[in-house]
Amino acid sequence: VRAACNFPAVPTADPFSGIFSHGPVAALVDGTSWTQAMLDFEAGLARACAGVGLIPPEAAAAITAACRVDQFDVATIGHEAGAGGNPAIPLVSALRGRVPDEFALYVHRGATSQDVIDTAMMLVARRALTVILSDVARLATSAAALVEPHRRTVMHGRTLLQQAVPVTFGLKAAGWLTAVQHARAALERAASTEPALQFGGAAGTLAALGDNGMRVAEALAEELGLPLPTLPWHTDRTRVTLLAGPLAAMVGVLGKIARDIELLAQNEVAEVTTGRGGGSSAMPHKRNPVQAVAVVACALRVPGPLATLHAAMLQEHERAAGAWHAEWEPFSELMRLAGSAVSWSAEMLEGLQVNPERMRANLDAAGDFMMAESVVAGLGMPGARELVDGALARAVAAESSLREALLATPDFPWSAEELDAELDPAAYLGVTQVFIKRALTAYEHDEESGG
Amino acid sequence: VRAACNFPAVPTADPFSGIFSHGPVAALVDGTSWTQAMLDFEAGLARACAGVGLIPPEAAAAITAACRVDQFDVATIGHEAGAGGNPAIPLVSALRGRVPDEFALYVHRGATSQDVIDTAMMLVARRALTVILSDVARLATSAAALVEPHRRTVMHGRTLLQQAVPVTFGLKAAGWLTAVQHARAALERAASTEPALQFGGAAGTLAALGDNGMRVAEALAEELGLPLPTLPWHTDRTRVTLLAGPLAAMVGVLGKIARDIELLAQNEVAEVTTGRGGGSSAMPHKRNPVQAVAVVACALRVPGPLATLHAAMLQEHERAAGAWHAEWEPFSELMRLAGSAVSWSAEMLEGLQVNPERMRANLDAAGDFMMAESVVAGLGMPGARELVDGALARAVAAESSLREALLATPDFPWSAEELDAELDPAAYLGVTQVFIKRALTAYEHDEESGG
Amino acid sequence: VRAACNFPAVPTADPFSGIFSHGPVAALVDGTSWTQAMLDFEAGLARACAGVGLIPPEAAAAITAACRVDQFDVATIGHEAGAGGNPAIPLVSALRGRVPDEFALYVHRGATSQDVIDTAMMLVARRALTVILSDVARLATSAAALVEPHRRTVMHGRTLLQQAVPVTFGLKAAGWLTAVQHARAALERAASTEPALQFGGAAGTLAALGDNGMRVAEALAEELGLPLPTLPWHTDRTRVTLLAGPLAAMVGVLGKIARDIELLAQNEVAEVTTGRGGGSSAMPHKRNPVQAVAVVACALRVPGPLATLHAAMLQEHERAAGAWHAEWEPFSELMRLAGSAVSWSAEMLEGLQVNPERMRANLDAAGDFMMAESVVAGLGMPGARELVDGALARAVAAESSLREALLATPDFPWSAEELDAELDPAAYLGVTQVFIKRALTAYEHDEESGG
Amino acid sequence: VRAACNFPAVPTADPFSGIFSHGPVAALVDGTSWTQAMLDFEAGLARACAGVGLIPPEAAAAITAACRVDQFDVATIGHEAGAGGNPAIPLVSALRGRVPDEFALYVHRGATSQDVIDTAMMLVARRALTVILSDVARLATSAAALVEPHRRTVMHGRTLLQQAVPVTFGLKAAGWLTAVQHARAALERAASTEPALQFGGAAGTLAALGDNGMRVAEALAEELGLPLPTLPWHTDRTRVTLLAGPLAAMVGVLGKIARDIELLAQNEVAEVTTGRGGGSSAMPHKRNPVQAVAVVACALRVPGPLATLHAAMLQEHERAAGAWHAEWEPFSELMRLAGSAVSWSAEMLEGLQVNPERMRANLDAAGDFMMAESVVAGLGMPGARELVDGALARAVAAESSLREALLATPDFPWSAEELDAELDPAAYLGVTQVFIKRALTAYEHDEESGG
Repeated sequence: VRAACNFPAVPTADPFSGIFSHGPVAALVDGTSWTQAMLDFEAGLARACAGVGLIPPEAAAAITAACRVDQFDVATIGHEAGAGGNPAIPLVSALRGRVPDEFALYVHRGATSQDVIDTAMMLVARRALTVILSDVARLATSAAALVEPHRRTVMHGRTLLQQAVPVTFGLKAAGWLTAVQHARAALERAASTEPALQFGGAAGTLAALGDNGMRVAEALAEELGLPLPTLPWHTDRTRVTLLAGPLAAMVGVLGKIARDIELLAQNEVAEVTTGRGGGSSAMPHKRNPVQAVAVVACALRVPGPLATLHAAMLQEHERAAGAWHAEWEPFSELMRLAGSAVSWSAEMLEGLQVNPERMRANLDAAGDFMMAESVVAGLGMPGARELVDGALARAVAAESSLREALLATPDFPWSAEELDAELDPAAYLGVTQVFIKRALTAYEHDEESGG
Repeated sequence: VRAACNFPAVPTADPFSGIFSHGPVAALVDGTSWTQAMLDFEAGLARACAGVGLIPPEAAAAITAACRVDQFDVATIGHEAGAGGNPAIPLVSALRGRVPDEFALYVHRGATSQDVIDTAMMLVARRALTVILSDVARLATSAAALVEPHRRTVMHGRTLLQQAVPVTFGLKAAGWLTAVQHARAALERAASTEPALQFGGAAGTLAALGDNGMRVAEALAEELGLPLPTLPWHTDRTRVTLLAGPLAAMVGVLGKIARDIELLAQNEVAEVTTGRGGGSSAMPHKRNPVQAVAVVACALRVPGPLATLHAAMLQEHERAAGAWHAEWEPFSELMRLAGSAVSWSAEMLEGLQVNPERMRANLDAAGDFMMAESVVAGLGMPGARELVDGALARAVAAESSLREALLATPDFPWSAEELDAELDPAAYLGVTQVFIKRALTAYEHDEESGG
Repeated sequence: VRAACNFPAVPTADPFSGIFSHGPVAALVDGTSWTQAMLDFEAGLARACAGVGLIPPEAAAAITAACRVDQFDVATIGHEAGAGGNPAIPLVSALRGRVPDEFALYVHRGATSQDVIDTAMMLVARRALTVILSDVARLATSAAALVEPHRRTVMHGRTLLQQAVPVTFGLKAAGWLTAVQHARAALERAASTEPALQFGGAAGTLAALGDNGMRVAEALAEELGLPLPTLPWHTDRTRVTLLAGPLAAMVGVLGKIARDIELLAQNEVAEVTTGRGGGSSAMPHKRNPVQAVAVVACALRVPGPLATLHAAMLQEHERAAGAWHAEWEPFSELMRLAGSAVSWSAEMLEGLQVNPERMRANLDAAGDFMMAESVVAGLGMPGARELVDGALARAVAAESSLREALLATPDFPWSAEELDAELDPAAYLGVTQVFIKRALTAYEHDEESGG
Repeated sequence: VRAACNFPAVPTADPFSGIFSHGPVAALVDGTSWTQAMLDFEAGLARACAGVGLIPPEAAAAITAACRVDQFDVATIGHEAGAGGNPAIPLVSALRGRVPDEFALYVHRGATSQDVIDTAMMLVARRALTVILSDVARLATSAAALVEPHRRTVMHGRTLLQQAVPVTFGLKAAGWLTAVQHARAALERAASTEPALQFGGAAGTLAALGDNGMRVAEALAEELGLPLPTLPWHTDRTRVTLLAGPLAAMVGVLGKIARDIELLAQNEVAEVTTGRGGGSSAMPHKRNPVQAVAVVACALRVPGPLATLHAAMLQEHERAAGAWHAEWEPFSELMRLAGSAVSWSAEMLEGLQVNPERMRANLDAAGDFMMAESVVAGLGMPGARELVDGALARAVAAESSLREALLATPDFPWSAEELDAELDPAAYLGVTQVFIKRALTAYEHDEESGG
């Protein structure tokens, strides 16, 4: 998927790549891949022009043959991009130098730099999103696989970082799954509808192609497998932000899951362990939840480039004086962070070890205070809350249990047996099983229709 | 649309409301509207509980009757929200005090504070989005109305804030229209798919309702006209960000249009005038493009709250300890800014005065340098660019025209007549008319299918 | 500090005020306070003009007398602000209507709207910062008071949300204190150096005052107690962002402290309790760390408005077309959030209950694995890490202790007594006491020099 | 300044480097420089340990000799950073492999990964800031050089992108200079006070060094030339954001200047030309203000990473689980963007061509409407504004001048000569010359005291 032709990934001198360039996406959005995508545009344009008879077929063949990134010095092109403010100018110049002299004239026919770079951005995005969505599918499978085995694994529900009322780990995993599926559907839709050809020439009229503009545009869209948009979108950046939004939302979902896992993996909680614990340079005993840490780090970073892309929407007239340029690196960064986060998350869920015994032990250790809501709801009578509040207060003061305090309450209407039934966490799960079934059914439905 | 019952808008002591609370949306997302929406939840819940036989119908009727925001002191509720960390707690308490004692018990059955507030957020969003989308339709109509009359109004295309090659004002307006329609389609889809009921109880299991959870949830969704989601989404904030994204993208599009208008309205350009020019406290002659300024101001502010909403996605466990709370005001702010921007933009386009004579005069004043690309393309031979570059250089040095310099070029292959034809801006518009037709056709198609 | 004259705070219908408008700052940055500050500018300007003989003293007296916000309808001024794009225009008009006709001419002499609003922003900022810094001082006192009593209260140090090596609670509190003091020093410096008069007239030349410009400017600065800057700073927004940055940094520090407290207050950790636990609308037993939750919520929101203020720095020419307007609400929001966060934090630290027994119990429950680094360091020989790693692995496999595994290691060089000394958490605290002393000394030094 | 030892810059395959990695700073903050800075920490630590007698001097010498980045494969270290979540772990491991076996034990004594990376971040920052501040000085010199020659070059003042009242180009340049100097002072202060050693060991107690912690810390600070902070600041990120803030403010100032230049360079305005106009791949005649475009692009991107750094302040306990990691790349990005923006800006101002004739022509072309404020101020009587407003309206209707309309006004009190004096733009400049003198004096004062 990297590009039309194979070329070797160049490892960059990046000491942080293991965290933020994890998985296959980073290489798909790096400078080499961008440049190949620009060359793909130029090659496609040459073939499109040949197809409508504007340039000789041999020129198109020669240009196509030359459009291999391994034949170019990307660093030099990057350096020279400063002169005109974008890399298309030196790249086109270098490309002209790599085709027979008589064909140089046919390179970049009718296009403007932004046509090259925007289309490249879309090609890069589509290639990256294909991989990201494939990893998301893997991740969803892993999340789904956690649900059924743990549908009755009772554990603390926690709200505001305090123990609340019981849930099951299956329900928690169903929540993760449902969130991933929600963001995934939006991302799939965006990935299929937003990428489009950019081809408008200097000011969006294709004037340099005379009457041939639409024919070339259609042929080029066909060559590159990208939809032909209603209009060139040089300064309408809607599709950039509509792609970025669901991608950022997906990373947010993964950040939520990773945060949960970090919290559940705390030694004091110990309800899950990540499969691959990271070592410490100082402490031999540490088993850091590195996968979750990496996902959280990616998630904390995503709002920044997303905001930049939105801020960059105010693009002047026919082509912008800075705002367009501001998109390139944040867009790549967002893709790279999302690719890393998805890749880390898939591994994290695949290797997650769940500890039902510890979940049960944590429930037991908590005493019966958290069942207070259950008793209030079970009593279902006026004054129930006050009665339970009073018993709770006495239990706290006496360091005893809610059970004892309630049974010692004069007007308490239940027998010990009735109360014990109400105090069983596993009996206070409401419609947990229904919810789990809804989540799995929705997932299975999506999978079938998605196939 | 404000709420189930009418209540007066309370003007707040806000000196900036005229700019950022323009139009009807601000009142729909203010504290009073939020509170009414919370009360709508409580009233709906009571009716839903009555519908499934959990509480007496008279209780539901009494609670519904009490759920009118004009009966509550929102400022006091806001003040008391500090104690428990959210306004649902004091609101429920106040509501219990406003129903007959025997019914107080039936208020807020099975719900948690977040159910109330999240559902209120969705009701507020839906009400605001209805109005926003209606204003967007008005805006699109105005944009579309600018296209046809100006399809052949030639003007400078401008790139990097420099004159480039000619376009027509109709094409520019078609670009605005297409961008609005693109963002609008995404916003309509989000507005119809993302708002959903929130109802999960303390930890998302509806445990306090025993076996009745799903029946109450279904009835409540029905009462409020909101879809019942697969699961409660207490800590899955995907739908919040998927709503916010297209809204922010829409404002970005409007910011682009307003920026164009600010630039076209510069005295030195003077190609458009805004219908309503703002006065100055100091300068009697000033006619500021206030509408455009307000839209740009809104657009510059939108990335901030959008980023906050994305940053807030990392919500812990079953309900979050801060990140959820962080959403409330930025979400309202985003709605308010979008409402203002849309309202301002609709007015701006409705009153926009286009000055074709000035556009023509600006073209004439520019000389023929900008037709250089046209000549290169028209020549279509090896060395064309170099020939034209040389002539341009000589023309600049001699302060003459490209025309003169070309005709004085020894090997120049064209006659003066041929050259003049090529130097006519109106003849160098490529597929402008085709693009305009595509934009109008797409718009009309959307209108028909949208109806 | 609110303003030159007293006026009642108007409670707004804001259901979230209890969380985000906590403490006294919100009222100092609300619309009424902004308007009073604008009136303070106009009153000061009138007196300054009178002082240099430009207007009659009676006019200045009449204008000053009229500049009381309780005499104005701020909501109406806000509404009318839409016409000209800012509230100064209708406010000046209203003010002219409130002075005797013969003095109306003397209102707003030589000033432009931005002079009024920017100076008001600075007055509002200074008033708010005075209160914020006072609350920060209170907060620092509370943080400092936690250090000494707990300088030897041993607890888990935790890194990457895993137990690491021991620290003391006093050291943790010293870290909080030092961070607060660092941000505080920066904020104090900014608060004393950044606020300045804005007074430049229509385009920054004070042309409408002829030769009197500087004399009026100097007198006005004197009247308002604000420094006279080198130049008007209409489109140089450095001081806005240099004020906002340290304020945001302070909230970030408070967010860190609050996050620590949320985590320490988890039931499974239980090492601290917040003094004021928030109740739950559903769960009688819950004691939510509401103060910490509110601070975290504020902290999550602060990067948004800060980024907006920075984005708004690109202000065109002599006065900007949107970017300036974009500052008003985010600036107030930042002040309000900071005010709330500081107020909440001061209360939180004042009421924080520390549980040394539970800290010790958590250490005991953790076993001796976390002392592995201590043993490696103590052994201090080649192969030490490998020896300890091996023992750890065997201890994990056998579910025994590091102690047992080490003593069973053939070449282990220490006696049981020697090992026990090394395994005592309280003996593995390095320079904890030195660090605590450094932190307290620095704090005391700051307090003395700050007095 | 790059590092302790020389090593070649490795050009990366980055097609955008010419825009966003302009000037010398990018190489100082790239992965190779980070890695060298980490090695500088390790070398310094070894020497510090030797200095206090903890390790043999030969070990320190051998470690120091090995700490040259050209001996390491940074890409591999980056790849391996994924396992433990940071690059210090594989780097320390690689370093141990590059010293004689008997000295491997002495590498990384008492330090934790974060000590290495945070200190490296500070070294990288200091090296980059030295260069940035040097370029800022160059830039200020260029800005200052524009003031004096143009102190009387009259031009339109423009507010809300409309012509307002006259200013001089010297005053505009003085405004740029003053803004740069303001941000520069803050950046210099931050650059000198915020960078500090990070050295705390696993949980900030330096426990692995026993009683030697402070002595090693002091020696290490000395070795690296960094201040020893009160405490380790593993999770107190104040200094990170206090460094980032003024840097971002500086870029905002440069963005404002570049925006002004883009607008002044519009063909329709043409009051300045940038020295180095960028070509176009399509249009031979284009002379794009590439330098300004690049600065604007940098400035639009800066709020993103700044917001991320602030969002990352909420770091848990003794070392964070994701938020710390989130800082690395945004911090480098901010430095790189600032370095590029400063470098571009210095070139832009050095080569800026000012066109006083065109400024005058633009004033003349504007007619005398913009002098309306001048007349109002000059009249200085009740009803002046109304009188001028009426004349303006008649002049607009008659397409005549304000002069004609005023002279035709029955009660107009001035002679034609008196009016002409008031209508001269050069006579309506208020205290422009005083302001210019203030700006230059302040600049000269700073230069002298800064030397």
